[in-house]
Amino acid sequence: MEALRQALRQVVAAEMAFDPAHDLAHLDRVWRNAQEIAASEPTSNPRFVLGAAYLHDLVNMPKDSPKRAQASQMSAKKSGPILEEIGFNAFEITDTQHAILAHSFSAGVTPETVEARILRDADRLDALGAVGIARSFMVAGGLARALSHPDDPFATDRALDDRQWSLDHWPLKLLRLPADMLTETGRKMAERRAAVMLRFLEELGAEFGEPLPESWREGII
Amino acid sequence: MEALRQALRQVVAAEMAFDPAHDLAHLDRVWRNAQEIAASEPTSNPRFVLGAAYLHDLVNMPKDSPKRAQASQMSAKKSGPILEEIGFNAFEITDTQHAILAHSFSAGVTPETVEARILRDADRLDALGAVGIARSFMVAGGLARALSHPDDPFATDRALDDRQWSLDHWPLKLLRLPADMLTETGRKMAERRAAVMLRFLEELGAEFGEPLPESWREGII
Repeated sequence: MEALRQALRQVVAAEMAFDPAHDLAHLDRVWRNAQEIAASEPTSNPRFVLGAAYLHDLVNMPKDSPKRAQASQMSAKKSGPILEEIGFNAFEITDTQHAILAHSFSAGVTPETVEARILRDADRLDALGAVGIARSFMVAGGLARALSHPDDPFATDRALDDRQWSLDHWPLKLLRLPADMLTETGRKMAERRAAVMLRFLEELGAEFGEPLPESWREGII
Repeated sequence: MEALRQALRQVVAAEMAFDPAHDLAHLDRVWRNAQEIAASEPTSNPRFVLGAAYLHDLVNMPKDSPKRAQASQMSAKKSGPILEEIGFNAFEITDTQHAILAHSFSAGVTPETVEARILRDADRLDALGAVGIARSFMVAGGLARALSHPDDPFATDRALDDRQWSLDHWPLKLLRLPADMLTETGRKMAERRAAVMLRFLEELGAEFGEPLPESWREGII
């Protein structure tokens, strides 16, 4: 497995365009998360999970690109010859490609296999916790988006708008992720990491002099 | 004071170029921090502190600009006519300008007044805590700098390099700030906020599967 991982890592390192939220370290973390989830999913095939973890972002489109929805389809297609090259058979390639295709929200494809469910949860976990906090603000900095609304950071008296205020993306999307996890282990990990984010928000509120509203905790069980 | 604050806020809102780490919300937070520190510094003049808090970043240079070291001098100079306009006398302007000039590391000017010490501490506090975490990663995203070294995030076996790895800036600069605070209240606030950052790093380490080395805590008492 480690030889396979190194081979995949080398291929993607050469392929990936620079994006601080979707770099090689992201792939390593997704693979780590996937292994942790897979430990509770004994029917999953670790080779498919490994292949999908390292190739799921092979074609990466910026968040504001109209082609964003096609990225996972393009990644699945492009990963075919790479998987063949490293010795996957036709069946293995099909399963791995399905996991890649179905990992993304925007593709709108339901994960039909245990490996696809593992990859989707593993990838979403990387948007949560301390890593999720860091990635969220790095994306905001890259898009020159402000941290939060200067007068009403927690939107107590305005509509949420995550195209303008980075923090608004948390209740709109990130803090909702735990409810959409597909595996039991993934859900538990997601809840733990969302709790880390809520503690961060409470501290931020204290520094802002604006207490975090109770409604921001509602996405979390 | 509130009328004066609004007047200053309006002037700087029109002047400031976009920079997510040095926007109007940063000035509001620095003013909040400054008020908290000033409560334990009875000899400080709140008008000077207010003027300096809102005008200290009037001229802002990108972190990588060669003119960076002159920014606080340019801000001090440019704030003269603004302070005169809102009714400060010559003595008040001089003291406020000194605080603005001496707030920056790169200017190399020692703060000689209590107001200058308050502003310097108040500004540095905004680089710490939850706000500091957010600003640090927003700056990294804006400069397309990676979160951390993929194989050795906490630099156990390499030299720190904060031009390449965003996280390396924490032990090199941010986690050292508490030791350099000039007021007692500022120091206590800084230690509390640095502890928030260390807890964040511990969580990040857990998610990375790389425990935070003890040496990273050494900057903190």
